[in-house]
Amino acid sequence: MKVLALLGSTRKDGNSEYLAKKIVEGTDHTIVTLADLDIKPIVDMRHTEEGFSPVEDDYEELVQLIEDHDILLFATPLYWYGMSGPMKNFFDRWSQYLRDERFNLKEELTKKKAYVVISGGPSARIKGLPLVQQFNYIFEFVNMEFADYIIGAGVRPGEVATDLAALEKAERWNALFR
Amino acid sequence: MKVLALLGSTRKDGNSEYLAKKIVEGTDHTIVTLADLDIKPIVDMRHTEEGFSPVEDDYEELVQLIEDHDILLFATPLYWYGMSGPMKNFFDRWSQYLRDERFNLKEELTKKKAYVVISGGPSARIKGLPLVQQFNYIFEFVNMEFADYIIGAGVRPGEVATDLAALEKAERWNALFR
Amino acid sequence: MKVLALLGSTRKDGNSEYLAKKIVEGTDHTIVTLADLDIKPIVDMRHTEEGFSPVEDDYEELVQLIEDHDILLFATPLYWYGMSGPMKNFFDRWSQYLRDERFNLKEELTKKKAYVVISGGPSARIKGLPLVQQFNYIFEFVNMEFADYIIGAGVRPGEVATDLAALEKAERWNALFR
Amino acid sequence: MKVLALLGSTRKDGNSEYLAKKIVEGTDHTIVTLADLDIKPIVDMRHTEEGFSPVEDDYEELVQLIEDHDILLFATPLYWYGMSGPMKNFFDRWSQYLRDERFNLKEELTKKKAYVVISGGPSARIKGLPLVQQFNYIFEFVNMEFADYIIGAGVRPGEVATDLAALEKAERWNALFR
Repeated sequence: MKVLALLGSTRKDGNSEYLAKKIVEGTDHTIVTLADLDIKPIVDMRHTEEGFSPVEDDYEELVQLIEDHDILLFATPLYWYGMSGPMKNFFDRWSQYLRDERFNLKEELTKKKAYVVISGGPSARIKGLPLVQQFNYIFEFVNMEFADYIIGAGVRPGEVATDLAALEKAERWNALFR
Repeated sequence: MKVLALLGSTRKDGNSEYLAKKIVEGTDHTIVTLADLDIKPIVDMRHTEEGFSPVEDDYEELVQLIEDHDILLFATPLYWYGMSGPMKNFFDRWSQYLRDERFNLKEELTKKKAYVVISGGPSARIKGLPLVQQFNYIFEFVNMEFADYIIGAGVRPGEVATDLAALEKAERWNALFR
Repeated sequence: MKVLALLGSTRKDGNSEYLAKKIVEGTDHTIVTLADLDIKPIVDMRHTEEGFSPVEDDYEELVQLIEDHDILLFATPLYWYGMSGPMKNFFDRWSQYLRDERFNLKEELTKKKAYVVISGGPSARIKGLPLVQQFNYIFEFVNMEFADYIIGAGVRPGEVATDLAALEKAERWNALFR
Repeated sequence: MKVLALLGSTRKDGNSEYLAKKIVEGTDHTIVTLADLDIKPIVDMRHTEEGFSPVEDDYEELVQLIEDHDILLFATPLYWYGMSGPMKNFFDRWSQYLRDERFNLKEELTKKKAYVVISGGPSARIKGLPLVQQFNYIFEFVNMEFADYIIGAGVRPGEVATDLAALEKAERWNALFR
């Protein structure tokens, strides 16, 4: 199985990245830091005559990566009780590429399994639940299995290493993905 | 009362904009289309020694606008069961400006009232609820009153004009804001 | 259209009852106060050899009423951020009667439309949302349309009469049901 | 630490009970099966002149048990996407006993820690989240710490024994409680 880890954080070596790296360690994987790519916001052209226009940024490379992996691991810190802005822009653009006949994204997504990692303060275990529900609706919409999620407790860099339950679950996923 | 309408949509004349305009019609208001501004994603520097750096974009103008209005009206289409990417980037940057001593954002927010408009398909009445919960956590965090929300049904441009219950509530708010 | 209003409150003339009565006024309807009936909790026998046993209480009369109406209006105060205990026992027993071949409940439910009224304090608009989500999952499970919901603000008896938006929506439903 | 396990299931040896027993094994604990007790639904008298009347059932014994333990472990199967009816009636009655001056429930609850176990089918990991949110609002209201929750996958009796992540977390709690 090939794992694509999509990191939503805008700092290096944060807690969601820490967990994501534990999860993919030793597996056949690719890690992408979304904030390092140029991903423009969607321009909603669904109801215009001309439809969507090609966009000059790094997005098509991401579409290719998604198609080439089996597991999609979405790892984001809880920013204002949601996924990070860069990850949100990533999802928003699906509206364009699900309709782009040069790709096969719509069908390919139905074959993937989605895993979600969220990191945040101690309250994230509760206040991160709307985000889990949002991910669920997203994956339902594209008919992709939502396999599981981890909400890890950690704010300062590295702090999540003390959340033993989160680590244990990360190791369990790692064993599955090897 | 001065109303600041922050529009999250990335198309013109969409349904959330339609409702927002009904709501502010005839009031002392300012409308800002977030996607028309240059708003960079947050770069999370909370735990670095140097802290946040100044960012060259249009954000500080927004901070000023927020401070100058009494009512904040957040209007966003439901994109992938959340607020739009541009609106998410708008909120993410609060993490920087709540700490910026050149502004008084943290204290000013506690004096405002927040109203939320979400537009989406017929399922938005349910699948938009995690977003309402997210807005609630956001406003709680900054200690700003979450006065009310509307979830309007409309996908094609203008379609929300047939959601009479949403329109009725928009008029009710309009009367309050005049 | 025949409307069956199922009241979950355990006091007379409360706010959810007030709204429910506004909604059914002048329609062809039946009102049932669940707390006035003898409804025993489910005894879960799904995985026993003998299966469910007949229960001596008023439940079968309710099953008949459901089958005989087109609209199901569930009206409950928010008790501890959920439906009332008597209404919960009502739903729990569906697990038994969906399997009871003397009735046709499973198929009949798919033909009904569900409407929900929740009353509570001012925070119910947010803290009642998990209950709305629960109702949604319930109706999805039995494949019954979840037409709409009202969350009305009112704690002291009659107080909801001052929630004009809730009343307006109640009247809108009333017009639909006539 | 003394642990009070309140079981909401209406069958013996179900999955939430299985997890609860793993959690309290070897600790100083009391197990109460709510369905075995006579717990009447609340009769809401908050806004009457006479107030609540004494109720002839087993509830006061429960109030005493709560006061005598440090940890409250609420274990319920997901019945119709909520807690079981008997457990709901248990919470509803708090409205009466928080006001009853013969007890000290209101203050005592603030000193306890709440743990929640929910069992259900594979979808419970998502569809049980509104219940987690409801528990959170309940515990917030009485100012009791919501320490953690487990959502275990299991429908047929004993099936949850194959949910290794749930078991692992149960053992982690057990170690804490010893």
